[in-house]
Amino acid sequence: MRLAELSRRSGVSTATIKYYLREGLLPPGRQVNTTTAEYDEEHLRRLRLVRAMIQVGRLPVATVREVLGHVDDESLGRTLRLGAALWALPQVPEPDEDDEWIQAAHQRVGELLQTLGWSNAKLLVTISPAYRSLVVAVAALRRLGYDWDPEMLVSYGKLMHQAAVLDLDFVETHPSEAEKVETAVLGAVLVEPMLQALHRLAQEEESARRYGFE
Amino acid sequence: MRLAELSRRSGVSTATIKYYLREGLLPPGRQVNTTTAEYDEEHLRRLRLVRAMIQVGRLPVATVREVLGHVDDESLGRTLRLGAALWALPQVPEPDEDDEWIQAAHQRVGELLQTLGWSNAKLLVTISPAYRSLVVAVAALRRLGYDWDPEMLVSYGKLMHQAAVLDLDFVETHPSEAEKVETAVLGAVLVEPMLQALHRLAQEEESARRYGFE
Repeated sequence: MRLAELSRRSGVSTATIKYYLREGLLPPGRQVNTTTAEYDEEHLRRLRLVRAMIQVGRLPVATVREVLGHVDDESLGRTLRLGAALWALPQVPEPDEDDEWIQAAHQRVGELLQTLGWSNAKLLVTISPAYRSLVVAVAALRRLGYDWDPEMLVSYGKLMHQAAVLDLDFVETHPSEAEKVETAVLGAVLVEPMLQALHRLAQEEESARRYGFE
Repeated sequence: MRLAELSRRSGVSTATIKYYLREGLLPPGRQVNTTTAEYDEEHLRRLRLVRAMIQVGRLPVATVREVLGHVDDESLGRTLRLGAALWALPQVPEPDEDDEWIQAAHQRVGELLQTLGWSNAKLLVTISPAYRSLVVAVAALRRLGYDWDPEMLVSYGKLMHQAAVLDLDFVETHPSEAEKVETAVLGAVLVEPMLQALHRLAQEEESARRYGFE
């Protein structure tokens, strides 16, 4: 398809598509002659992903470029390719390892992974931003004087594992390796806000069931 | 306790506590004499909540004041008091009701609530920011050309309802009505990042189980 059709089918203006092409967020089309290039379904898919990251995820162009670099790195196995793409998304700052609350949280989260039987996740603790985010969140709660029932963390962990099984089942419905990785990135940008909204809506539902509306 | 002890027990500097007092985020202590005020456990609890919202939730002071106004409004029933406090937290912008994707998303989310049997949530659709967030998230996915399996939304909804049951069970372990509402707000500020971290960690675990590390 030509640029005009790519624009029509994606709902992205030709000026914006040209900008993405210049910034290297979209691979160049196949040059048909000096003024015309031809684009395919893969361009359309990539354009949608870029737009989701920029418009919905509000990621800066440099971050989008980094994420796409991992998405396209076929030298990595699937776990690392999925991981590397997600890890390039915005994360919490590095925890301060000298802080006593952070040290206690490492201990607490280590026990949690043990109880949940997440032996693979345990192998990733030194490189995983998700692990670091969890340590920071647990430390923040305890620093504020809220002691969390470890049983509750285990229950939340089991629910989130069920959600992850759904996520990956969905990722696997996509035929190509590139689409699988793209879907995982899209999930982080678009599905997390949806899950958060569903969670709050479920709280309203459950609250009204228990206490009514007065 | 005196200001110095309140500072020591909360880990918040006396200068910051005085600032919160001036801004009305913390109720004044009981004046013992012209220069000394006495604070109690309720001040300590409120101070921790304010700190969580400002330092972890990064909420502006005006928003914190609004949230606390709802937390303290005893004229509301529990569902509305919980809701009003959560609703004052930052939300997605209002959806554009003239947009065809938004209209389709209302339809889709309405069917979802029906399937899930969330009849109470259905009654709140005109006022609930969680409902609006969900409509915006669903519309964003479909506008980007991703059609979502309605069955998946139902599965995610059921998981999030289980999470909400855990949340409210935890809220109910607190004796006073004020603490219940405070815990709900704290949950939105601190537990959501923890759930998100657990979710990403579970994805890593599940991914490594399925595809290994190469």
